[in-house]
Amino acid sequence: MAAEKIATRAADYSQWYLDIVHRAGLAENSEVRGCMVIKPHGYAIWEKMQRGLDRLFKDTGHVNAYFPLFIPKSFLAREEEMAAGFAKECAVITHYRLKAVPGQGLVVDPEAKLEEELIVRPTSETIIWHTYKNWIQSYRDLPLLINQWANVVRWEMRTRLFLRTAEFLWQEGHTAHATQAEAEEETRRMVEVYRTFAEEWMAMPVLVGPKSEGQKFPGAVYTLCIEAMMQDGKALQAGTSHFLGQNFAKAFDVQFQNKEGQREFAWATSWGVSTRLIGGVIMTHSDDQGLVLPPRLAPVHAVIVPIYKTSEERSAVLEAANKLAAEVRELPLREWLNYEAVAVKVDDREQYQPGFKFNEWELKGVPVRVELGPKDLAKGACVLARRDLPGKEAKEIGVPLTKAAARIGEMLQAMQTALFEKARKFRDNNTHEVNDFGEFKKLIDEPGGFLCAHWDGTRETEDRIAAETKATIRCIPFNRKPEPGKCIVTGKPSEGRVVFAKAY
Amino acid sequence: MAAEKIATRAADYSQWYLDIVHRAGLAENSEVRGCMVIKPHGYAIWEKMQRGLDRLFKDTGHVNAYFPLFIPKSFLAREEEMAAGFAKECAVITHYRLKAVPGQGLVVDPEAKLEEELIVRPTSETIIWHTYKNWIQSYRDLPLLINQWANVVRWEMRTRLFLRTAEFLWQEGHTAHATQAEAEEETRRMVEVYRTFAEEWMAMPVLVGPKSEGQKFPGAVYTLCIEAMMQDGKALQAGTSHFLGQNFAKAFDVQFQNKEGQREFAWATSWGVSTRLIGGVIMTHSDDQGLVLPPRLAPVHAVIVPIYKTSEERSAVLEAANKLAAEVRELPLREWLNYEAVAVKVDDREQYQPGFKFNEWELKGVPVRVELGPKDLAKGACVLARRDLPGKEAKEIGVPLTKAAARIGEMLQAMQTALFEKARKFRDNNTHEVNDFGEFKKLIDEPGGFLCAHWDGTRETEDRIAAETKATIRCIPFNRKPEPGKCIVTGKPSEGRVVFAKAY
Repeated sequence: MAAEKIATRAADYSQWYLDIVHRAGLAENSEVRGCMVIKPHGYAIWEKMQRGLDRLFKDTGHVNAYFPLFIPKSFLAREEEMAAGFAKECAVITHYRLKAVPGQGLVVDPEAKLEEELIVRPTSETIIWHTYKNWIQSYRDLPLLINQWANVVRWEMRTRLFLRTAEFLWQEGHTAHATQAEAEEETRRMVEVYRTFAEEWMAMPVLVGPKSEGQKFPGAVYTLCIEAMMQDGKALQAGTSHFLGQNFAKAFDVQFQNKEGQREFAWATSWGVSTRLIGGVIMTHSDDQGLVLPPRLAPVHAVIVPIYKTSEERSAVLEAANKLAAEVRELPLREWLNYEAVAVKVDDREQYQPGFKFNEWELKGVPVRVELGPKDLAKGACVLARRDLPGKEAKEIGVPLTKAAARIGEMLQAMQTALFEKARKFRDNNTHEVNDFGEFKKLIDEPGGFLCAHWDGTRETEDRIAAETKATIRCIPFNRKPEPGKCIVTGKPSEGRVVFAKAY
Repeated sequence: MAAEKIATRAADYSQWYLDIVHRAGLAENSEVRGCMVIKPHGYAIWEKMQRGLDRLFKDTGHVNAYFPLFIPKSFLAREEEMAAGFAKECAVITHYRLKAVPGQGLVVDPEAKLEEELIVRPTSETIIWHTYKNWIQSYRDLPLLINQWANVVRWEMRTRLFLRTAEFLWQEGHTAHATQAEAEEETRRMVEVYRTFAEEWMAMPVLVGPKSEGQKFPGAVYTLCIEAMMQDGKALQAGTSHFLGQNFAKAFDVQFQNKEGQREFAWATSWGVSTRLIGGVIMTHSDDQGLVLPPRLAPVHAVIVPIYKTSEERSAVLEAANKLAAEVRELPLREWLNYEAVAVKVDDREQYQPGFKFNEWELKGVPVRVELGPKDLAKGACVLARRDLPGKEAKEIGVPLTKAAARIGEMLQAMQTALFEKARKFRDNNTHEVNDFGEFKKLIDEPGGFLCAHWDGTRETEDRIAAETKATIRCIPFNRKPEPGKCIVTGKPSEGRVVFAKAY
């Protein structure tokens, strides 16, 4: 298996992505259309993401809770935009029993039909705001700062592992506030939490700002997002934070008594990121040899591959390897790794050769590889190799064993920074200002990337650009410079450039 | 709210349980029949449980993964016993789209009917073994030691918060092995992991051993369990570990090449615990004042309630409280608490009086309460109160502030041990040997508890006892003494006593 090369990015980008997902053991399609199996190595990345995000949520005052998987069909209908947005892709439960019928096997029992159909949650605003109605009576009950880790289902017709699947795992925050200002502050706070996580953990630079009206969440007043660029120049919406105004409070009649003794509808936000982030981290950093992972999200940080011929050599090398592993586990990086030890593996499998092991760990994205053979041992040294650097640059030869653990710690930290810088340069190099629609249409196909252009702010123009180029407005960055200009399509005035791209 | 008392155990045990679940903010029923909302305080207990269990699973070599929520209907039919066991309580997905119809609102779109219905997983053996077929070719691919944290649905008609709900959260381990011996060893290892968790984390003593044939999991060769006694003398099945033999490998044609080059079906286990454990921990330790939690699972370990009248007093007392809180967070109990700091809260809410706060934290099961007022402060001391001890015994007055943090640490550890001992005594005091069916029928109603009796080993007798008394065989304890005797119903020979009880 490991001998067979994966596709290169240049030759077939889509296949390259799928090859990495499959061959690194991250995920696969299941027998159920659109639903994926997240394999242990992929799930381990998700666990690291969960742990990092959960800490950031709790540090900003949030708590977790759990709401039902099923939502009565009528709930969806209460918020009009949401109904329009999600009705087309709902898994619907109509019955609650099967029965065995001779000759037909198990069939749906027609007598077990539900009075009202249930849908599998595509997102939980409706069931949660129905619940909040009983939790919110007075301003003293506010804010509610609640997050949920859950699975959701959206019946997508075209799926791609991690990036778009019918079932996916995510977190969804749902907060309720006494004032509009507080809810808007929360909306902004959480998109900044996502930026922190994307940049500091995933080493994935992101643009931050509102979506256009055409791209916002159905039911939101406005949507803030973090938006990243993949290595094919396409955009990935990586996280969204919605200011919901009083839309859901009105739909579910959630009123409270404010400080002045008056009844008022509560103000809401919701925000989420999903297993799509795994797709993002793969496509931001990986190369033609396989997966590259930022050390803070790597399930295994370092692997030690012993090299030997005789059984005497084997035991000597393994002893040194285990000693080094123990030292690496004690590295003072726990805070940086969210209170987990550095994860190090001694690959002592006897049925495989070192070369096979090197390839396998490279494919799986382990940040640091340690090679340790009898000749190294004789010199009291080892070889270290960093996953993200090319060819010879990656290798450090003759590293004294007494200093190897500390050096591995330094390499992990350096790699985390280097991956971010590299990705940022790539994004900046593939971001272009465009002032003319003809040029825009040419550039969006080749070379692609982010195109910064003036736009007149209307839905109509946005739709026209999308129809003619497949590019959408990804983000109106908070940090764009104010620059009056003219819309590339209509020539109408614009306050500044917005970012267009083709997107996943 | 807090002024209103909860029901007492003696007066109405069921109501007492529900009062605690509601008033301690643990869970509530949702609009969707049988599905609960797990509220933040309840979910925080589940997070502690997950973290503790997950560590034990990983320490025994397991990894996590994620499999689809939906299962094709035909999969269920492949393993006959499983189909018979679960078909009656399946949520069935028949359609994948709604549409808006003027005058009718959102309706199920008849054109979006699935060719094959999907069921929401009641447990994942079928979809997982279908997946394993592609993962297992050779003995080198074995063992697979995989766990999943997930939600599952069983359409229960009579539900009770945490103990029996249509949707619940759980973990399900699914392992595949090359030999029967290895799979049986795993089955036993995991029931011992559950025992460890129940006893050392939940402070809940359990019986450990096989279920009878009548009580085993549909599809298993045999089922091992941990079984606990609640304060009303009823049994709670708290965790199960199943030896599945080759049943699922045969149903899904999972064969591998063994060391001798022959094709063989793989051997399987599965094992799970669920949010039902939260019900177990509530009913094992709580009292008529509210929830009592073992410190290792408490979301908040200590609460400091400042007492003051003037604003000068307030700032002096709060300063001392915050200083003490910081010391408590630094207590060297991280390993004992699964690498989390001691969680301490300074309850500085101004709108409530100290007495109200005392009641609230008592109801919520915080293990240690600290009272700190100007008089205490003048003496450089505070008052500590342990949640599980009665009346005056609970209080330690005049504890020097310099020693308070250390004392709180000691109290937490002592309380963990004391809760286990108390529960074990309760169980032992409510366990009786019975030698006669007439006596059995009397005792099972009053006083209840565990009845140890001889049984002839047949399903028939087991069913008859259940029909006449509602008691079932809960466990055939590994550590029962060999004691030849005669079945209390048929007089046929028996090798030893088995444990009967009414159960949740």
